[in-house]
Amino acid sequence: MPADDEALFKKGMPIRREVLGAEYVDSSMAKADDFMMSFQRATTAWAWGWAWGDKTLPRKTRSLLNLAMLTALGKIPEVKLHVKGALNNGITVEEIKATLLHATAYCGIPAGLDAFKAAHEVLLAEGAIQPKAAAEEKPKKKTKK
Amino acid sequence: MPADDEALFKKGMPIRREVLGAEYVDSSMAKADDFMMSFQRATTAWAWGWAWGDKTLPRKTRSLLNLAMLTALGKIPEVKLHVKGALNNGITVEEIKATLLHATAYCGIPAGLDAFKAAHEVLLAEGAIQPKAAAEEKPKKKTKK
Amino acid sequence: MPADDEALFKKGMPIRREVLGAEYVDSSMAKADDFMMSFQRATTAWAWGWAWGDKTLPRKTRSLLNLAMLTALGKIPEVKLHVKGALNNGITVEEIKATLLHATAYCGIPAGLDAFKAAHEVLLAEGAIQPKAAAEEKPKKKTKK
Amino acid sequence: MPADDEALFKKGMPIRREVLGAEYVDSSMAKADDFMMSFQRATTAWAWGWAWGDKTLPRKTRSLLNLAMLTALGKIPEVKLHVKGALNNGITVEEIKATLLHATAYCGIPAGLDAFKAAHEVLLAEGAIQPKAAAEEKPKKKTKK
Amino acid sequence: MPADDEALFKKGMPIRREVLGAEYVDSSMAKADDFMMSFQRATTAWAWGWAWGDKTLPRKTRSLLNLAMLTALGKIPEVKLHVKGALNNGITVEEIKATLLHATAYCGIPAGLDAFKAAHEVLLAEGAIQPKAAAEEKPKKKTKK
Amino acid sequence: MPADDEALFKKGMPIRREVLGAEYVDSSMAKADDFMMSFQRATTAWAWGWAWGDKTLPRKTRSLLNLAMLTALGKIPEVKLHVKGALNNGITVEEIKATLLHATAYCGIPAGLDAFKAAHEVLLAEGAIQPKAAAEEKPKKKTKK
Repeated sequence: MPADDEALFKKGMPIRREVLGAEYVDSSMAKADDFMMSFQRATTAWAWGWAWGDKTLPRKTRSLLNLAMLTALGKIPEVKLHVKGALNNGITVEEIKATLLHATAYCGIPAGLDAFKAAHEVLLAEGAIQPKAAAEEKPKKKTKK
Repeated sequence: MPADDEALFKKGMPIRREVLGAEYVDSSMAKADDFMMSFQRATTAWAWGWAWGDKTLPRKTRSLLNLAMLTALGKIPEVKLHVKGALNNGITVEEIKATLLHATAYCGIPAGLDAFKAAHEVLLAEGAIQPKAAAEEKPKKKTKK
Repeated sequence: MPADDEALFKKGMPIRREVLGAEYVDSSMAKADDFMMSFQRATTAWAWGWAWGDKTLPRKTRSLLNLAMLTALGKIPEVKLHVKGALNNGITVEEIKATLLHATAYCGIPAGLDAFKAAHEVLLAEGAIQPKAAAEEKPKKKTKK
Repeated sequence: MPADDEALFKKGMPIRREVLGAEYVDSSMAKADDFMMSFQRATTAWAWGWAWGDKTLPRKTRSLLNLAMLTALGKIPEVKLHVKGALNNGITVEEIKATLLHATAYCGIPAGLDAFKAAHEVLLAEGAIQPKAAAEEKPKKKTKK
Repeated sequence: MPADDEALFKKGMPIRREVLGAEYVDSSMAKADDFMMSFQRATTAWAWGWAWGDKTLPRKTRSLLNLAMLTALGKIPEVKLHVKGALNNGITVEEIKATLLHATAYCGIPAGLDAFKAAHEVLLAEGAIQPKAAAEEKPKKKTKK
Repeated sequence: MPADDEALFKKGMPIRREVLGAEYVDSSMAKADDFMMSFQRATTAWAWGWAWGDKTLPRKTRSLLNLAMLTALGKIPEVKLHVKGALNNGITVEEIKATLLHATAYCGIPAGLDAFKAAHEVLLAEGAIQPKAAAEEKPKKKTKK
């Protein structure tokens, strides 16, 4: 007999794999024991099947919503995950920056700082921005922005 | 001598008037005494001049970011204000609903309830949805959605 | 074709009616238009079918968990709803008081105050405690507790 | 036999009466039934006896701490109470305004808005600021601040 | 002369030692310098003497309340501490899981994720669940739950 | 052409350097790439130029406000930064302790614990308090406080 949330779980899994990366998601599922699997099912069914599975809003928009909300909620490990997801969904570094600055005005300076540091770490790791030493070589016109 | 935030205040005021409605904003400014004016300047300069004044993200996106963030922050009077702003920015009722359902998955059921009730009140007041008695007359196909 | 969350919705509805009262729930459903119905489905499926529908914890325990969590989240209208639900689930006034005092130590004095005022209002309205004038007549030994 | 927190309760009560006003506190205590009295004891012993009863910080400083923290926590009814307490402790309107603007930078624009509206309402009710119509008559030099 | 909170401190210490483990608590006390001792006294008196010291609710219930509240508050190090306390109080792994899933519905997916990861780490360290490799050997029927 | 927030940025930088230490701030600025510089500008202009730059409240008071607010917001890395800033502003260890105990009553035990541990780490690193082994040698009269 299928679980009560089977339909949403099945709907959510391919979306989750596309947004967060198949390798990352498959590895999370493979290493989940019974205890963690109960949460894996919950997030796949509710966040990915039920919320992301609705087609009213484009995935790009949902990525930006998540960055702003997770900054407001102060959930930093999830900010990191969704910066990676945002890059996978085609969001630019400038759009991520603009979203986090927008969130800073509404959530306050300390919430913005946490989110900026987390996003920066992921953007460097993913090669979306270059370490400063490398960037240094081209003239920096935008730092006074 | 202009105040330190004069440039951002001037940049923010026309944006604020366009999004929230000129009449509402002008009335807020007109009735603000010295005490409230200090906050009026802050929100106009910081939220509207600095955050909304950046052109990287379209206003529609910023409206949806605000609905999601304000749900996360539990700031219900501001949810109401930005539902009205969202309508002014051309957001549809379906997009507002999808944003609040998305936020419910991330912020939890009680946060979603507060935001839904607030949005519903504004959507009715603005005529964006009809009172149920009136809606009743056409067959309801979507309630099982 | 049934909605993706149909099984959980059907599982949750009778539990929700038993805990919050059939009359209250039926009236919420009856007056919900398309916009609010999307949230009604979410809360029925997710909170009531998925969370409350699991039999590992007794309903009494879930009522107390909700009072403590909703105090932590500062969701006062939901505190009121779940004080009523707690009474329906057979929780005593003393147990509600002990739960809110426990939550006060963990969430702070202002969070405790909000929850106490909300619970007090519902307990009076439901006749679970008597207005002070009436209580006055019997000697009060416990106020120094 | 005295309650376990009797010493702190006795220490807190005169401080609470001095800061919030004897009339307000005595009325809260007089109308408290058994249920609310358990919270009245908690706040008197813990917030007033234990926290405020420590002499390391002056009461003025504690009033400002409370305004900032309660803005961060979003506890608006308590903001109102402590604006009144701040006036009783000799805090000026300018100091209250500066504290709330400071809190706005750290807690975000919506948190600041809630606190400003709450404080404004109390300052008017207490006669610490004048309704704008009356203030209008003297030339306003400070609104551009 | 005893401190004002001496009675609550003395009442709380044995309860704290029983729930969190005597070794852990004695070590925390022994290594606390003057600065940390002021907080050690506060948590022992208020959380353990005042809240846990009240006998209206069984300790098992208080353990579950704490897991739910600490998830809502996002206090992850304290979630870890109270997962260990819950095991000491006789709570089963299934009850911990059910409590965290319940909290996920009310506090949102990211809050649930943080709590699940924290609880999982402690349950493994305490030997309450087995590493997946070991669990693998017996047929897993419950992962579809 | 200067940026819109240039005046506040210039006003904020010397205050930020004085409070947090010139070396720390200069190093943060020097290593900031384009992405992080957008936040560096925001915090310098808004937190330091706009909030701290206002002279109505003394810096000592603003340091204490920050410790209390950051405890309420649960922003632990920022608590650390502002404990260091508080020492630079002439705040004593006893005043920091009293502020965090005050915040514990209003924000709850787990919020207090996080702040105490963070502050303790910085006070030791800055030499404002001694490791317990060293302190042990002088008789400890104050632990029963």
